[in-house]
Amino acid sequence: MIFAEKHLSLLLRRMNLDAVLFWSLENIRFLCGFTGSDGALIYGGKERVFLSDSRYEEQAKAEIRAAAFRKYRKKIEGVAQCLRSMRVKRLGFEASALSWESHQRLKGLLPRVSLVPLSEAIAGLRARKEPEEIEKIRRAIQIASESFQDILSRVKPGGREKTLGDFLEIRMKRRGGEGSSFPTIVASGSRGALPHGKASEKKLEEKELVVIDFGVRYEGYHSDETKTLILGRPDPSQKKIYDLVRRAQERAMKAVRPGASVRRIDAAAREVISRGGYGKFFGHGTGHGIGLAVHEPPAISPRGSGVVKEGMVFSIEPGIYLPGWGGVRLEDLVLVTDRGCEALTYLSKELKDNII
Amino acid sequence: MIFAEKHLSLLLRRMNLDAVLFWSLENIRFLCGFTGSDGALIYGGKERVFLSDSRYEEQAKAEIRAAAFRKYRKKIEGVAQCLRSMRVKRLGFEASALSWESHQRLKGLLPRVSLVPLSEAIAGLRARKEPEEIEKIRRAIQIASESFQDILSRVKPGGREKTLGDFLEIRMKRRGGEGSSFPTIVASGSRGALPHGKASEKKLEEKELVVIDFGVRYEGYHSDETKTLILGRPDPSQKKIYDLVRRAQERAMKAVRPGASVRRIDAAAREVISRGGYGKFFGHGTGHGIGLAVHEPPAISPRGSGVVKEGMVFSIEPGIYLPGWGGVRLEDLVLVTDRGCEALTYLSKELKDNII
Repeated sequence: MIFAEKHLSLLLRRMNLDAVLFWSLENIRFLCGFTGSDGALIYGGKERVFLSDSRYEEQAKAEIRAAAFRKYRKKIEGVAQCLRSMRVKRLGFEASALSWESHQRLKGLLPRVSLVPLSEAIAGLRARKEPEEIEKIRRAIQIASESFQDILSRVKPGGREKTLGDFLEIRMKRRGGEGSSFPTIVASGSRGALPHGKASEKKLEEKELVVIDFGVRYEGYHSDETKTLILGRPDPSQKKIYDLVRRAQERAMKAVRPGASVRRIDAAAREVISRGGYGKFFGHGTGHGIGLAVHEPPAISPRGSGVVKEGMVFSIEPGIYLPGWGGVRLEDLVLVTDRGCEALTYLSKELKDNII
Repeated sequence: MIFAEKHLSLLLRRMNLDAVLFWSLENIRFLCGFTGSDGALIYGGKERVFLSDSRYEEQAKAEIRAAAFRKYRKKIEGVAQCLRSMRVKRLGFEASALSWESHQRLKGLLPRVSLVPLSEAIAGLRARKEPEEIEKIRRAIQIASESFQDILSRVKPGGREKTLGDFLEIRMKRRGGEGSSFPTIVASGSRGALPHGKASEKKLEEKELVVIDFGVRYEGYHSDETKTLILGRPDPSQKKIYDLVRRAQERAMKAVRPGASVRRIDAAAREVISRGGYGKFFGHGTGHGIGLAVHEPPAISPRGSGVVKEGMVFSIEPGIYLPGWGGVRLEDLVLVTDRGCEALTYLSKELKDNII
């Protein structure tokens, strides 16, 4: 919260705002601790009010810190009334989280308040993680990794993707996870060409590559990791493509340090794959920030902007997807340190360790 | 889709729109079958285009029906380009799903297109369910109910709420569910006063009431049900409050028929509780529609509007929450039939069947 508090107090001053209205549950949780699924936070420097309805009254009172609680019956009306009582004249709002309709209604109720859209100015609010956030991500990774080990013996020809994915999700839950970060991806054989190939009824076959992308939530924080397993001795094309992706991933990780631009990190991975002749089969960005949301800033992408900073946590996940043939993706989470980065995920991505 | 197709074609004509831009994943899935987590649908009467990025290209091509596919690198730019090529002049958009920022950027890219906010006009698009949707909800309910039976033997003094909730979620997953509809609520003793009391580390104790609110997703459709169990012989206040909630629930169910106003149905439950002297301890609405989203129209609430129609599916879930004492909530899902309603959930809500 130190980065965020400073950032916000600077923002209020610089843009001459009386308060910022937070609507996204991740930012609300981050700034005041509320873990429920509906509410709004008015962040006015020292004065902070969290608002929700009666369902969440007791929970909010137990959870929130550094904020007062106010109950509403109707959300927009309750927020407007609170803003009036706080005498807010200039209000920043989350431009990407507030719907067109809510903005319109708020404007109608508060004709004399200037509503100032905040976009880039708050996009990276949660990007630099505090030590306790990193600990929660580490714990999520540990739960996911141990669960992955639990299911390894079941990865064999004849098993169904979905059975494997379900089993992994159940293990993560049993080991203390709150739920999967996203529907687990198990994409074997030619299905590996689907970067987001949710586990299907397809059975694994000998000699196939199996892309498994999985993660779990722990105290609100997510893990995310991708392994590509090979069912048998890799053939030359499998080996070549796996090695290329692995080298791309290593190159990108080496490029990570405070001040490195996100485009430069992306390019480090992309160049390896392009030079190998597979540039057009790597259609997505190299990585994404992660924390209370599975995808959050920074975007490590050719279309991203800015530089990475100490404390940021994001994925490095290059992949090659060949329609009809299949795919390889390798994903680790890294934490930017003072001089480079530390891989938080620890399951081996070496080819030799991924042959079943 | 029959209701929805008719509704949309009428809407296009009546509001003189060339197309409607769908942004919410539930409406996208409903209208074109895409189950991934990012994309947009341009619904122009007979001409329909679903757009997404490269991650989802193969999945989209395999899943979507009655729509063409177009790939974008940047979402808003891709959507704008497609709208231009379709020569759309008047475009409806989901006012509650499109963010202020996306609207602004779309407007910037398409200065000559009229953007027409749609709110009430499409809010109930998915409210009346088709037979195959009802089947999926029934299947979700069956998975959840059987899983609930699986855990009943574990509901006893000394067990932790969280262990119980986790076990229920694992059973639902094992029985074929895609994931929990929401974090399972297990609120025992005084925690029952929290209408959304997520399972905690608290241990169950003798004589406590235990509110368990649970649901599972199956092929995108959700179940949602609440049981209140009593650990031992109910004392007079427990019996009195349980009976009151049960009568409120029955009264509301009896009020359901095509043409009944949502306020009337809500009032049917609320009157019973108010007359019993607990009106101010029933702070939420009586029910909510359910389907691809856990909460969707109709809202069965004192602040709701309109009438219910044949084919709608919603919850009836009155509750009484007494700070310091605990709570009782009973929730069933009902389907509006030609003359009344059918309860889709089938676990008994009778007091005698809920004594452990």
